[in-house]
Amino acid sequence: MKIVIALDSFKESLTAAAACDAVVRGFRAVLPQAAYHCVPMADGGEGTTAALVAARGGKWRDVLVQDPLGRPVTARYGCLPDGSAVMEMAEAAGLHLLAPAERDPHLTSTFGVGEMLRHALDGGARHIILGIGGSATNDGGAGMLQALGVRLLDEKGSELPRGGAALSRLARADFSGLLPTLRNCTLQVACDVNNPLCGERGASAIFGPQKGADAAAVAELDAALAHYAAVLTAAGLPDKRETPGTGAAGGLGYALALLGAELTSGISLVMQAAGLANALRDADLVITGEGRIDGQTRLGKVPFGVLQLAQTQGVPVIALAGVLGAGAETLTDDGFTAIFPSIAALAPLADTLAQGAANLERTARQIAAVWQLGRRG
Amino acid sequence: MKIVIALDSFKESLTAAAACDAVVRGFRAVLPQAAYHCVPMADGGEGTTAALVAARGGKWRDVLVQDPLGRPVTARYGCLPDGSAVMEMAEAAGLHLLAPAERDPHLTSTFGVGEMLRHALDGGARHIILGIGGSATNDGGAGMLQALGVRLLDEKGSELPRGGAALSRLARADFSGLLPTLRNCTLQVACDVNNPLCGERGASAIFGPQKGADAAAVAELDAALAHYAAVLTAAGLPDKRETPGTGAAGGLGYALALLGAELTSGISLVMQAAGLANALRDADLVITGEGRIDGQTRLGKVPFGVLQLAQTQGVPVIALAGVLGAGAETLTDDGFTAIFPSIAALAPLADTLAQGAANLERTARQIAAVWQLGRRG
Repeated sequence: MKIVIALDSFKESLTAAAACDAVVRGFRAVLPQAAYHCVPMADGGEGTTAALVAARGGKWRDVLVQDPLGRPVTARYGCLPDGSAVMEMAEAAGLHLLAPAERDPHLTSTFGVGEMLRHALDGGARHIILGIGGSATNDGGAGMLQALGVRLLDEKGSELPRGGAALSRLARADFSGLLPTLRNCTLQVACDVNNPLCGERGASAIFGPQKGADAAAVAELDAALAHYAAVLTAAGLPDKRETPGTGAAGGLGYALALLGAELTSGISLVMQAAGLANALRDADLVITGEGRIDGQTRLGKVPFGVLQLAQTQGVPVIALAGVLGAGAETLTDDGFTAIFPSIAALAPLADTLAQGAANLERTARQIAAVWQLGRRG
Repeated sequence: MKIVIALDSFKESLTAAAACDAVVRGFRAVLPQAAYHCVPMADGGEGTTAALVAARGGKWRDVLVQDPLGRPVTARYGCLPDGSAVMEMAEAAGLHLLAPAERDPHLTSTFGVGEMLRHALDGGARHIILGIGGSATNDGGAGMLQALGVRLLDEKGSELPRGGAALSRLARADFSGLLPTLRNCTLQVACDVNNPLCGERGASAIFGPQKGADAAAVAELDAALAHYAAVLTAAGLPDKRETPGTGAAGGLGYALALLGAELTSGISLVMQAAGLANALRDADLVITGEGRIDGQTRLGKVPFGVLQLAQTQGVPVIALAGVLGAGAETLTDDGFTAIFPSIAALAPLADTLAQGAANLERTARQIAAVWQLGRRG
């Protein structure tokens, strides 16, 4: 008997790997002879690197880079056994790196993201998976380009300072210094938004406010991004301004698209990178899950991605959550065999989060016992 | 396929019958062809009458009786199709009938319990099941005896007033007026305590304080009960003073024993009266449960009683709860196939109680789906 265990992390409670381990313990108590294939999952957001490092048996790398305001910060990324690298932009340019008072997308830069990429490329990576959620920036990926060797110059030929505001003064871009190894590297970007770079649905208007931009700043930054992209397009670079997803991460999606990156839904990318389809072959059952399952789970979340992939192979799917939210009960119509929450009492949140692994293990064990009861029929 | 559904009530949320119905709805959504046998359960405490009326298709009877302080109160009891009656003493003499300031076991009487019994006997009942939890009284069942025709007289030959304190003045008891139909009636009493009538572990010492007795009152009431029982014993009535359970319900257990009642564990009595053993015959699965399941569930609670009975017939048992408490995880060692809580989120208690039926139905449905998945396996 083959059982695939493919859960996302339970936020503030369990990493994806720890969640999978808890489920395996629960099942193994009932079905010690079964073969368990753990494939820790993520949706391209926080925890993606950790999940793929765990799923593929990768190694962690630390690199000192510049944070959104140019201060040193240690960023971690993963190296997978096939030589791929997997990283999250938030390690170098995430909003969580700044105190609320420091959040100013006029100034924040993706420079550190470029440094992370350079470190991986220098280390020999020829395929890079990059998650781009949670950014503090609105610089159209300009900082990343600068870190990778692109020169962004003002009318006087001086290098532009960092940050989204300075892009309004861009006069000329020089791509001649772009790191050559980039040409032999494929870039896959996990991106679940389809916003264009500029305008009403663009990076500044939609994501600027949460990074500290008021209405005036949004207008200023949107105009700066439009100018930046116009200069690059006029210089002969591909026109990606309207490409869905280029507005992601303060326009980092745009700069990555210029570098030839493929923008892919996070869950698809992670499932592919984790080798889930292969793991599902001949499986009797797959257990997936996430900290919370609700009607939004259909929108690019791990349990739903796992369900859709498992359905193509005819493998039944049971989902486990910490808690259920509105609409969870409708998900069985989509094909989940069953969905179980794992909390057991009305306890304080901190206690509940601390009991995440125990609750998940217990729930998995009960499910295994009921499944086994049916099999004995 | 035959599935027996035998849950206790979920306190403050669902009656036993409503809990069983919710589980049936959940199972039927997955297994519409199965035969469902609902046997609402109780443990001899609150809800026992309702469970047996539901399980057996009984009818309710209302009777106006005296409450613990002699005021009129409508008590409900059940008449089962075979002519048995089922009742709870708390309907006539329960602590819940008194405001906290009114709680005084010097004065409170079980007279109304006798009235309920008389009403059932007058209606033709020849078997009566009586749950005796939750009493406000400490009168050794004297009030009940008085309502059934016994005369309790002081030295001057006057009838004693009601209440536990007056028993100290008992000089003589006259049983000649005892309702004759009692002789042709069997009395089964659901009683899960084994306290004797008097002494350190007696009715007054153990249960008096929760009914409003301070230390002095406990001593006074214990002495009064001892005197009362000594007079009755000296008069030739059977000496039941040390019989386990006679200290139940303020010594009501003692008076019931004098009348020949059988004191039985509540869960055994209810399972027998509900016909659970018969329902379990050839069953493929039994679902039991209670609002809370924890290590204490072993101590005479419905899920454990159902488990033990089902084990004698080799029927697997799955238990459902609202919430789990400490020690619940150890119960699978006793033989439950699985135990599931049904809450799904950390919501306010009132909301959680209001969602009891929906949560139970959802949980039952998921279990049915997993069981069915195994059967198809």
